[in-house]
Amino acid sequence: MTPDHSRRNFLTRTALAIAVTPFAQLATSSTANATPVQPGIEPFRGKHQGGIATPMQSSTYFIAFDMDDTAKREDLTKLLQAWTDAAATMCAGPAQFDAKADHNQPSGESGATVGIPASRLTITFGFGATLFEKEGKDRYALAKQRPEALVDMPRFAGDQLVSERTGGDLSIQACADDPQVVEYAVRILVKLAIGTASMRWAQMGFSGGFKPGETGRNQMGFKDGTINVPTQNQTEMNKFVWVGKEGPAWMQNGSYMVIRPIRISLEHWDAMKTSFQEETVGRQKASGAPIGKQHEFDKLNLDATDTAGNPVTTENSHAAMSAPENNDGAQILRRAFSFDNGITRIAERWPPWRQLMTFDAGLLFQCYQQDPRTGFIKLFAKMAQIDMLNQFTTHTGGGLFACPPGTKPGGYIGEALFM
Amino acid sequence: MTPDHSRRNFLTRTALAIAVTPFAQLATSSTANATPVQPGIEPFRGKHQGGIATPMQSSTYFIAFDMDDTAKREDLTKLLQAWTDAAATMCAGPAQFDAKADHNQPSGESGATVGIPASRLTITFGFGATLFEKEGKDRYALAKQRPEALVDMPRFAGDQLVSERTGGDLSIQACADDPQVVEYAVRILVKLAIGTASMRWAQMGFSGGFKPGETGRNQMGFKDGTINVPTQNQTEMNKFVWVGKEGPAWMQNGSYMVIRPIRISLEHWDAMKTSFQEETVGRQKASGAPIGKQHEFDKLNLDATDTAGNPVTTENSHAAMSAPENNDGAQILRRAFSFDNGITRIAERWPPWRQLMTFDAGLLFQCYQQDPRTGFIKLFAKMAQIDMLNQFTTHTGGGLFACPPGTKPGGYIGEALFM
Repeated sequence: MTPDHSRRNFLTRTALAIAVTPFAQLATSSTANATPVQPGIEPFRGKHQGGIATPMQSSTYFIAFDMDDTAKREDLTKLLQAWTDAAATMCAGPAQFDAKADHNQPSGESGATVGIPASRLTITFGFGATLFEKEGKDRYALAKQRPEALVDMPRFAGDQLVSERTGGDLSIQACADDPQVVEYAVRILVKLAIGTASMRWAQMGFSGGFKPGETGRNQMGFKDGTINVPTQNQTEMNKFVWVGKEGPAWMQNGSYMVIRPIRISLEHWDAMKTSFQEETVGRQKASGAPIGKQHEFDKLNLDATDTAGNPVTTENSHAAMSAPENNDGAQILRRAFSFDNGITRIAERWPPWRQLMTFDAGLLFQCYQQDPRTGFIKLFAKMAQIDMLNQFTTHTGGGLFACPPGTKPGGYIGEALFM
Repeated sequence: MTPDHSRRNFLTRTALAIAVTPFAQLATSSTANATPVQPGIEPFRGKHQGGIATPMQSSTYFIAFDMDDTAKREDLTKLLQAWTDAAATMCAGPAQFDAKADHNQPSGESGATVGIPASRLTITFGFGATLFEKEGKDRYALAKQRPEALVDMPRFAGDQLVSERTGGDLSIQACADDPQVVEYAVRILVKLAIGTASMRWAQMGFSGGFKPGETGRNQMGFKDGTINVPTQNQTEMNKFVWVGKEGPAWMQNGSYMVIRPIRISLEHWDAMKTSFQEETVGRQKASGAPIGKQHEFDKLNLDATDTAGNPVTTENSHAAMSAPENNDGAQILRRAFSFDNGITRIAERWPPWRQLMTFDAGLLFQCYQQDPRTGFIKLFAKMAQIDMLNQFTTHTGGGLFACPPGTKPGGYIGEALFM
């Protein structure tokens, strides 16, 4: 894209060979993409994109783009090729400076991650509905291939989405165990888009260093993600997460991703009694166990009643509302981080009309699913109305992106869409 | 402060005993505050505040406050007492849920860090010049005790400081090896300030996971901090960083902190030839060595000339401009992180009048010094005018804060100021 992107003039990557492990070899394994080829390196090429079934990393950088700068289909495919090549190179291992580099050439990349371990970098690409059709225009002759599952997101009760945090034609998410690694990766990819796509919105995220295998706590102090699709279970992944034959051929082995930055009123939350917090969440705070049970992974107590005949687990608690048992078995693969953008000014529109600075922080909610109509949208439509947790949360943005399958060496993200 | 801050109803901290190691014991050691008492735990009490001589952590959260909500000196000292106690408790180790807690009491703290290791949390407090006198008002009868060194910061060439990122009466900085730990600590402290001080500006920061003892690279890809005051050397620390008998008694063993969020035009930087980048920085990119030298820690080549008689190290390169040799021996203790707030819209005021989204990212520059007049201000006044690096950097905010000495058990931050 940019003529001066001459990375190889200045940086080399010794681990590059790892990235070009033949696709065939990976695809025959039932756990393709599940196990790093080398410690700290997640394979970029494979049946599925990385960053979906990959065990959660501690840092993320999400960014959405508008294809405002070109109406040429060829520019779009060239960008996807350049992005794919750069992502494969970066995921293959950290760059090193090339001692033989010509110093009279632009360095192209800063080299900011030279010396940082690979950190399990994954880069996941997605296509928004507006890539296929925007304001009635079929800009890239793709409208006919828009998947039915890539719906226009409905407006949910309580939504306070701002356009600066919503939508986008294309999305990139970098995840790694190092914030400098994800930031660097995104900035390299953004540079490749100059003249083709422009940045629409971006959000960094993090998660705390809980013990591996232990369910982490989010900012509200409750364990977050106890019920989740088990990523090692291919049957469950194929049922709930990966697109199969029900979808268009170009999306098979891909997945649909919903992202929602959710501001949380932590000060309000912390002032609540613990018993009320537990009633709201539908779980015990310390252990994560369902109300009336002992252990985190005990089955939710949805039908039990107390001596007065009231449900033990409040019917509009967060756990009850989102339970597969109450949603025709619906499940999503949650992959949520926290975010904190510092502070922002708010002006309340109700008494006592407070105007003050508040934290712009909360949950960068994300989930993957085979079909958002039977995943997030099904689950959240009712939750948005009556989930008790809504008193403390505000959805301030979001998007739905079709994340195509992984790529073979030489291939590029989404290429089957353009054939 | 807040009547419902009843942390001990719900959370306990088993490691609390560590925090109350007698001050006398620490003070007799020449490396007070330098060595953690227990892995992952940095002592909060001691001769100096933590977070200054402490080896850099990977995450930070800085926040500045305005004392707009009260004119009572007693409210200020009560806040400082509450902050000190809470900080000492948090730095002593991660909270645990108390099995005997009364669930019908507000939890007070979220418990978001239960399960995360201590992560070397430090919390550092500072006082801005406006705490002593604001718009001619001596709000807390402190004006006479304002240190001479706590100057009004001059306007430097090129400054584009916005008030939403500048100044403040009080500052808190949490540093730890975990983003959730610093965020949690700051939010607990902010809650204690409700009704007394309000949030003015805040900025999270991070650094990449370089090998311990290795100089990290910043976003520009150059090693950052090769020349720095050695924190293990008490003579140097006493000379350049800690306030001594030249300062007011209440500031002795404290230090002055300058913070400046500096936006970096990385896209512009990456398009430069490596040779020009090296000329600009005055060091070699790969090794960090001075121009014409072999090793990172070789002495800067400031007097050498090439065969044409030109200086080997360009006179207005960043390294030459900031070298102690060129600044009457001035040195500062740098403690800089990177920041990335995602993207922001800019409108250029010069041809080609571009309006576009750009990264709001760069260096969260910080330094500590015995006196800013002989430290940052002396060094930066000339650099702001002619440092070649300025082509790529914009200072968008900042502050100067007097960070008092550490505290004894039972004491509070800055208490000698109020006696």
